Amino acid sequence: MGLIVQKFGGSSVANAQRVMNVAKIVTDTYKAGNDVVVVVSAQGDTTDDLIAKAKEINPMAPKREMDMLMSAGEQISIALLSMAIEKLGYPAISLLGWQAGFLTNSVYSSARIKKIDTSRIKNELDNKRIVVVAGFQGINKYDDVTTLGRGGSDTSAVAIAASLNADKCQIFTDVDGVYTADPRKVKNAKKLSEITYDEMLELATLGAQVLNNRSVEMAKKYNVELEVISSLNPIPGTMVKETAKMEKMLVRGVTKDADASRISVIGVNDVPGVAFKIFSKLAAKNINVDIILQSVGRDGTKDITFTVGVDNAAEAVKAVESLPFIGDAKVVRDDSVAKISVVGAGMETHPGTASTMFEALYNQDINIQMISTSEIKISILIDEKDADKAVAAVHEAFFGSE
Amino acid sequence: MGLIVQKFGGSSVANAQRVMNVAKIVTDTYKAGNDVVVVVSAQGDTTDDLIAKAKEINPMAPKREMDMLMSAGEQISIALLSMAIEKLGYPAISLLGWQAGFLTNSVYSSARIKKIDTSRIKNELDNKRIVVVAGFQGINKYDDVTTLGRGGSDTSAVAIAASLNADKCQIFTDVDGVYTADPRKVKNAKKLSEITYDEMLELATLGAQVLNNRSVEMAKKYNVELEVISSLNPIPGTMVKETAKMEKMLVRGVTKDADASRISVIGVNDVPGVAFKIFSKLAAKNINVDIILQSVGRDGTKDITFTVGVDNAAEAVKAVESLPFIGDAKVVRDDSVAKISVVGAGMETHPGTASTMFEALYNQDINIQMISTSEIKISILIDEKDADKAVAAVHEAFFGSE
Repeated sequence: MGLIVQKFGGSSVANAQRVMNVAKIVTDTYKAGNDVVVVVSAQGDTTDDLIAKAKEINPMAPKREMDMLMSAGEQISIALLSMAIEKLGYPAISLLGWQAGFLTNSVYSSARIKKIDTSRIKNELDNKRIVVVAGFQGINKYDDVTTLGRGGSDTSAVAIAASLNADKCQIFTDVDGVYTADPRKVKNAKKLSEITYDEMLELATLGAQVLNNRSVEMAKKYNVELEVISSLNPIPGTMVKETAKMEKMLVRGVTKDADASRISVIGVNDVPGVAFKIFSKLAAKNINVDIILQSVGRDGTKDITFTVGVDNAAEAVKAVESLPFIGDAKVVRDDSVAKISVVGAGMETHPGTASTMFEALYNQDINIQMISTSEIKISILIDEKDADKAVAAVHEAFFGSE
Repeated sequence: MGLIVQKFGGSSVANAQRVMNVAKIVTDTYKAGNDVVVVVSAQGDTTDDLIAKAKEINPMAPKREMDMLMSAGEQISIALLSMAIEKLGYPAISLLGWQAGFLTNSVYSSARIKKIDTSRIKNELDNKRIVVVAGFQGINKYDDVTTLGRGGSDTSAVAIAASLNADKCQIFTDVDGVYTADPRKVKNAKKLSEITYDEMLELATLGAQVLNNRSVEMAKKYNVELEVISSLNPIPGTMVKETAKMEKMLVRGVTKDADASRISVIGVNDVPGVAFKIFSKLAAKNINVDIILQSVGRDGTKDITFTVGVDNAAEAVKAVESLPFIGDAKVVRDDSVAKISVVGAGMETHPGTASTMFEALYNQDINIQMISTSEIKISILIDEKDADKAVAAVHEAFFGSE
């Protein structure tokens, strides 16, 4: 008995049979006596198909029109899911972003939610309807349609859960929870029953691809209890919350991110302000920099190395080369790198984590190129060809081999 | 120089190349110094595809959800057309039905426009933008999306033209105007340069399939000058207006409607009120009856014959058979009939029209089953197998053979 928000991604509603499966999950929750708000993404490849249509006509299409186009995808899913719920004999109503009260700023294609006017949703819940809301979309103050960007439906779901003070926000996906490593790659990966927001944030950033980061940040801010759960396999998933049982685990998971590019600026003059100028230039271009490493100055020059997403690598090299003080310094880019990370709130108080990780890599003869640490994670950069071997070795060091 | 509303149907925007073609027509009109509002339908088969998706999930889907689903089709077209216009270097903005101010009643799937709040459209026109409006859709007083039913985009275009007091409303289609007969069937069919609203209404009803009837009624009511014109072949089309030059033509056109079904009630008691009861029963079922013929009473019984659309025939037979006074009377249905009509305001003052038509059919040995006349049309019912021959013969009688 309570109010539950359930979110289903595009693959969960990809065809008629899957839509019916989602309707079954939703109505089972409703039958158990809960009020239910469902947030859905566009079906399967719809978003990609719409993008392809736009590119064929105008590769530089205005973002406002892209948002108008893309938001049609969720509109189709909410209508179909509502029909499926009605088919099962339960009352449903679909609501577009603007009908559900999502007011955003005007940054088309990656808008931020400013507030949700929940009066319509509440009214429909009072009428005992299952409310099916289009994720990923809202309107701005000009009454124009906006979209929330990548992973926006997760954010929509958490925002509704926060606004309605829901008892739980379930994120249904095609995996059945958060694992200590990618279960397709590491065969003794273990599913976590609980994880903290902070750990989840580190895992999301590091390429675990289960939950969108903005949604986890929002869940942490408003203390929304999240559950990552499978839409195909109805077993308990992973709870994401403020504090989580440690289950004697030092770390929560081992992740790999192969979408990194290493850029080295070699032989730049060793004068104050060099790093500042490089990174403020990159920030101005909206390029996120991850690991940064600066060598000790020698012969009046120094080397600065950093990683960026591989999509931004070309622009980053160009931006750095355009800086007047770069002069004869060489800018070198290497895409064949991977970042391996271990995450866990427990490592704060266990100084041995780093050495366990490094020893595992040393035993496999894997060379570490860069190291970066935070309170709850350790990331290292290695050659991409060693990445899967490294994940397996580090995972075994922390979680055992069986 | 003026304000022009242009409407493009689904086949005109079916793919990227056609969308660019439409963008060219629109921007040429804009370049000539006009303010332009464009109304578009969903691309090609989009509407049918969406209906198929819905049927797979729930053949009895609530109409509200069908409207939510279907309206996504026009949303995609307006975004793509706006992108295409921007690609050609002109400013465009797409507006959904609700953004364009279309307020309708709440009859989902065949809503009627109650009013258009044109403030947003006017504002965008003042900013010298080409305004691209989603046809076929609006919202009701509950802020729920509605659709206008078959041919709704024509109605949207005429309604905007009326509300904005536009100089012209151009309906672009895949034919280049209104013809005296179907040009695919009758090789010497002639294109009309002008036609009156009333004549167009009769032609539309009779299956000319060029313009939706509601849009012509609305154009007549608000005196909106319509032009039916080809989107692929840029030559002048047919003007539809209050009065039209007669060009020495007695009739405007010859049409065929093979989607009719003839239902005969044979041997019903010849007492007062029988016809009234039959047709009020059919009206209660929302079944439109077209031609009605009643025999003279004989032996205390009479026969009543009428035509309905073939889609409604089964329901009509059931409705009539359910009437208590039908008793032993036989209800017979025949779908193999076709209605041939000639339409023209000129026939009011030319009593020879009917005899010219009947003579043409007699010369071809075609039997007339039923006859119906109005001030500006004559319709006859014949065997469906004779229909094309009949159209050709009647057309030749009025328009000659060359």
